[in-house]
Amino acid sequence: MAILALDLGGTKLAHAVFSVKGKLMDKRMDALGERKGGAVGRLIQDVVALRINEQSDDDPITSVGICVPGIYNCQTQRVWAPNIDGWEDFPLADEIRKVSKGAAVYVDSDRSCCILGEVWQGNAKNNKDAIFITVGTGIGAGIIADGHVIRGAHDIAGAIGWMALEKPYASEYDQCGHFEYYASGDGIARTAVKMLNNSPDYAGILSEFPQDKLTAHHVFSAYQNDDIMAMKVISYAIELWGMATANLVSIFNPEKIIFGGGMFGPAAIFINQIQEEAEKWAQPISMKKVSLSTSELGSDAGLYGAAYLALSSKSNS
Amino acid sequence: MAILALDLGGTKLAHAVFSVKGKLMDKRMDALGERKGGAVGRLIQDVVALRINEQSDDDPITSVGICVPGIYNCQTQRVWAPNIDGWEDFPLADEIRKVSKGAAVYVDSDRSCCILGEVWQGNAKNNKDAIFITVGTGIGAGIIADGHVIRGAHDIAGAIGWMALEKPYASEYDQCGHFEYYASGDGIARTAVKMLNNSPDYAGILSEFPQDKLTAHHVFSAYQNDDIMAMKVISYAIELWGMATANLVSIFNPEKIIFGGGMFGPAAIFINQIQEEAEKWAQPISMKKVSLSTSELGSDAGLYGAAYLALSSKSNS
Repeated sequence: MAILALDLGGTKLAHAVFSVKGKLMDKRMDALGERKGGAVGRLIQDVVALRINEQSDDDPITSVGICVPGIYNCQTQRVWAPNIDGWEDFPLADEIRKVSKGAAVYVDSDRSCCILGEVWQGNAKNNKDAIFITVGTGIGAGIIADGHVIRGAHDIAGAIGWMALEKPYASEYDQCGHFEYYASGDGIARTAVKMLNNSPDYAGILSEFPQDKLTAHHVFSAYQNDDIMAMKVISYAIELWGMATANLVSIFNPEKIIFGGGMFGPAAIFINQIQEEAEKWAQPISMKKVSLSTSELGSDAGLYGAAYLALSSKSNS
Repeated sequence: MAILALDLGGTKLAHAVFSVKGKLMDKRMDALGERKGGAVGRLIQDVVALRINEQSDDDPITSVGICVPGIYNCQTQRVWAPNIDGWEDFPLADEIRKVSKGAAVYVDSDRSCCILGEVWQGNAKNNKDAIFITVGTGIGAGIIADGHVIRGAHDIAGAIGWMALEKPYASEYDQCGHFEYYASGDGIARTAVKMLNNSPDYAGILSEFPQDKLTAHHVFSAYQNDDIMAMKVISYAIELWGMATANLVSIFNPEKIIFGGGMFGPAAIFINQIQEEAEKWAQPISMKKVSLSTSELGSDAGLYGAAYLALSSKSNS
C-alpha cells in the first residue's frame, strides 16, 4: 500500500509516492508549459495513470491526494484556481477518478495542505492548533484549530491577505486586500516603486532597475547590501507581518505559526523581528505560548499535506 | 429530565431551567452583592442545590451548564474570572458537583456560551460557521467553525479585543489591546475624553459631564441629539468595528456575525454602517455571503448557551 501525492502549482506539477509510514519517495516535477484548462487536467491524469502503473503489484497506490493553487469546493468537489486559465470550476476529483483505478481521490487547497503537511511531518508536528502563513505572490493562511482544518462556510477561510491593518481604506486594496497589497511579494515590489517615486534624490541600488521589472527579490538583495530604501520597504513589511501574526495569535491562541511561500525564503531572517512586532500587539498570554518559525518542509509542504490528506481521510472519496 | 443553566456575570447570577426541547422556564436572578472568591462559589452551590431540589421527581435535573465571565480551562476545569476577586483559578466544576446530586456539570466561557446559544436558538440557528462579537466593557468573540467552538491551545482563543487595526503601536494598548482600547464601551468613553481634551472650543453635550464620569452611554445619547463630537467618536468606533468584522469575515468565511454585549444595545442602529465599512476591506466573496445582525437572545444568550452546553455535551462531566 502506498499513497500518490501531487502538488499543482501555477507553472508546475510536483508528484511523489509516499509509504503509509510517511516516507517521501521518488519525487518528480513536470512543467505545465503552455497548458490551460482541460490540458492541465490531462497532464494530471497522465501522471496519475503513469505512477499507478509503475507501482509493483504488492505495493499498489490505494489513494491519491492533490493540492491545488486555489479553492477546493468540498461540496461540488470542483476547483477554482485563478492562475490556471479555464479552472474557474474544474471537476478535478472526477477527472482523476477516471484514471485512478479505484484508488480514492482527495483534493484540497495549497493553504490547507501546507499546514497539514507541517502538522504531520514538519515544524508543527503533533500540534492541534497551528497556522501556516504563505507569503508569495499573494498571502493566505492554512489554519488548524483543535485538529480541524478551518474551511469556512464556502471553503474560502484563511484569506488573511484581506486583513485590514491600517486606515484609511483605499480602492487600490480592492483586488487583493490591504495586507497583501503591501506585504506580499508583489506588495513589497509595489511599496518599493511607490517609495522610489516619492524619493527623487535616492540613487541607490533599487533605482538601477526599471520600475516595472523590480521584484521583491531585488529588494531583499538590496537590503543585504544595506540599501537604505530597501531597509525602509522591508521594515514596513515586517510591521505588517507582525500585526497580522499578532491578530492570528489573539484570535486562535495557536501553538505554532509557520511562515512559508516564496518570500520565506529570503524573509526567514526576519522571524525574530516579526515576533518582536507581534509581541507589541497580541494577547500577551497567547503570544508567550506561541512559537514562530519557517516551514521545515519548504516547497514540499504541499506535497506532504496532499499525502497526509489521502492517508488520513476516511470519507469524501 | 431537565437542564439547569446558570449565567454568572460580574455582578449577578442568572439561572433558569430548560426542558430538553430547549424551552426556557422560570428564569431568576441573584445579585452577587459584596461576595468574593469562595462566597460566589457558595452562592452558585446554593442556587444549584435549591433548583435541583425544587424539581419534581418525574422531571429531575440531569445536567447543569454554567457560563462564566472569563476563561474556562478545559484541562484543569478551573475558571479565571478577572472581575470576581479570588477567581484566578477557581475549581468551579468541582464545587458544583459537590451539590449536583450526580447531575453532570459543564462549564464554559461567556464567549463560547453566547455563540452556542445563538446557534441553538438565536440568530445563527443551525449555522456551522458563526461568530458572536461581544462589545461591553471589553471586547471578545465566541467563534464556531464547522460546528466546533474555537478554544485555542490554552482556551484563550477569541481575544479579538487585541486585534491590531492601526499603526503606530502605543504602550497604552498593553492592558487590553488596540481594538478594545478604542472600540469597547470603555474605549468609546476614552476616545470621547481624548477628543474633548483636544477640542477646547467644543461646548456641546459631552462637555457637561465630568470627564471621569463620562460613559459610552452618554456618548450614544449625545449622538441621538446630533452632537458633533459624539458623531465623531461613534464614526471612529464604527470604522474599527467594520475593520474587525472584515478581518473575521476574511479569516473564517462565516455565515453569521452577531453583535451582542452592553453596547449592542445602543449601537444596534449602526449595523448597516458597520457592514458598509467591512465591505471596503473584507474578502469580497466571503463578505457577500455573511449576514450581520444583533443578538436575538440578548442578555439571555449566555444562559441559552449554558443550557445547550449541558444538553449537547457527552463527555467532560
